[in-house]
Amino acid sequence: MSVFTPVPAEALSGWLGRYAVGRLVDLQGISAGVQNSNFFVTTTLGRYVLTLFESIPRAELPFYLHLMAHLARHGLPVPAPIADRDNEYLGTLSERPAALVVRLSGRSEMAPDANRCGRVGAMLAGLHLAGLSYGRRQENPRGAAWRAATAACVRAFLPADEQALLDAELAYQAATDFADLPRGVIHADLFRDNVLWDDDRIGGVIDFYFAGHDALLFDVAVTVNDWCTGDDGALDPLRTAALLDAYHAERPFTAAERRCWPAMLRAAALRFWLSRAEDFHLPKAGELVSVKPPAEYRDILRLRIATSHALPD
Amino acid sequence: MSVFTPVPAEALSGWLGRYAVGRLVDLQGISAGVQNSNFFVTTTLGRYVLTLFESIPRAELPFYLHLMAHLARHGLPVPAPIADRDNEYLGTLSERPAALVVRLSGRSEMAPDANRCGRVGAMLAGLHLAGLSYGRRQENPRGAAWRAATAACVRAFLPADEQALLDAELAYQAATDFADLPRGVIHADLFRDNVLWDDDRIGGVIDFYFAGHDALLFDVAVTVNDWCTGDDGALDPLRTAALLDAYHAERPFTAAERRCWPAMLRAAALRFWLSRAEDFHLPKAGELVSVKPPAEYRDILRLRIATSHALPD
Repeated sequence: MSVFTPVPAEALSGWLGRYAVGRLVDLQGISAGVQNSNFFVTTTLGRYVLTLFESIPRAELPFYLHLMAHLARHGLPVPAPIADRDNEYLGTLSERPAALVVRLSGRSEMAPDANRCGRVGAMLAGLHLAGLSYGRRQENPRGAAWRAATAACVRAFLPADEQALLDAELAYQAATDFADLPRGVIHADLFRDNVLWDDDRIGGVIDFYFAGHDALLFDVAVTVNDWCTGDDGALDPLRTAALLDAYHAERPFTAAERRCWPAMLRAAALRFWLSRAEDFHLPKAGELVSVKPPAEYRDILRLRIATSHALPD
Repeated sequence: MSVFTPVPAEALSGWLGRYAVGRLVDLQGISAGVQNSNFFVTTTLGRYVLTLFESIPRAELPFYLHLMAHLARHGLPVPAPIADRDNEYLGTLSERPAALVVRLSGRSEMAPDANRCGRVGAMLAGLHLAGLSYGRRQENPRGAAWRAATAACVRAFLPADEQALLDAELAYQAATDFADLPRGVIHADLFRDNVLWDDDRIGGVIDFYFAGHDALLFDVAVTVNDWCTGDDGALDPLRTAALLDAYHAERPFTAAERRCWPAMLRAAALRFWLSRAEDFHLPKAGELVSVKPPAEYRDILRLRIATSHALPD
């Protein structure tokens, strides 16, 4: 469940008077997402999602909301935030920062085929290209600095072999030169549950609250590690080729990206191993929501180290 | 048919490279609309409408495109224009000003019931409220000054009884004091064919290319004259009450609007009688598209003069 803060219908009805979206018809909590309270809101004029932000600092929210607006403006299937009558995206409801966004259609597909992986690759490239003209800037909150700091926190909880794996990987990452990689705004969490499918068309890309500025290739690696990994943790060759070829057709990979690809697949695996290990060993009060096992991404990291991978020419 | 300018698929494919919307999958001409060339464009990332502007001066187009973006940003079901990689809405294709907008779902309903008229009234009020924070300004291109100028042009083509009707109505309108009416951005052409229905929900409001700044009540009158008029030209009481009550619930009518309502219903009828008479008697070269008979709105004007009408309290 990801409704932490209750929103009474009467309070919402009054709050919606700040907008031009008509009258409240229906309000329903949504049981997905890990750091916000989400609701489906139907009005006489349309269908929206209401988000109450439980943990992201208010000052960081305009970066995410304006990014979603920017990407939607560029034709990407991203939930556009709704401006109120004062032209503001961010409001306050039930004492939380709150925003209303367009409700997109479709549902997640947890067993995507190569065709869908190709569509995701093309969409991710479109997102990166459109992001180049976005004016606001915020660093990837789960970038290299976060990885080093989090590793230091969780290390003591790990068995000796995992400590060795972590130390070796941090040393390898620190020794890799990522300086020449093209950078821009990345989604940074484009897992299968954050894409909504309308038949085999992408109806929506959601959950931009990990987005930030970083190497575009990091985003590609996060996405490939989720969409193209088989049950054994190895990359499925067909799905991986479909995703990377489609991305490459929209935004061709550079020589530096080709060189860094194996290291980036590992960096992306490390990032999720670390965040899951942190959630597991150091859970924050009130965040009892669906802790995912850290072992999955530890094993993916080991496999990415053991296997060679290349980007398409 | 409203495809005047052909767009070869190869030219469009190249042009779409300016956007982040993926690759062209399908291109199809649309046979609706009277002053632009319109196409359905499907790409790997989404579904859009491409419009080539055939007659609106390029300098006026940003007003319309930014208005559509503004209203969409406020949650209204309006086709949001897509920005290219330079963040511009307006481009050039086949030597015409061109824009790509989101393709909305639904189809027109030419025999709306009272329930739908109510939804249109609520949506129109939402549009007026959201328009209050729109920064650009352009006068209603079919406002009082246009009506006087056009009347002078078409008068000579009319039989004596219609000339008398026209003279009397122009004198009546000139003697009516509209100064206290709330003003703002109006759609100004919200006919049944400009609303798309997705079941009984409004999926889209289209064709903003007559929009401008004028009395909000003029927009209400244009809308009522189309949506609520029966086959005999008289206003259907149920549909009229549904539309006006729903509007009133979102943006309550003022005393000045109540006073001016009968005159405004007549002004709105006059506007369409005049434009249709102009299209009929003084057709412009190349505008051979579906000339509508002027008699319909001449008769509606006569009936609005003969009957009393009031806004809800």
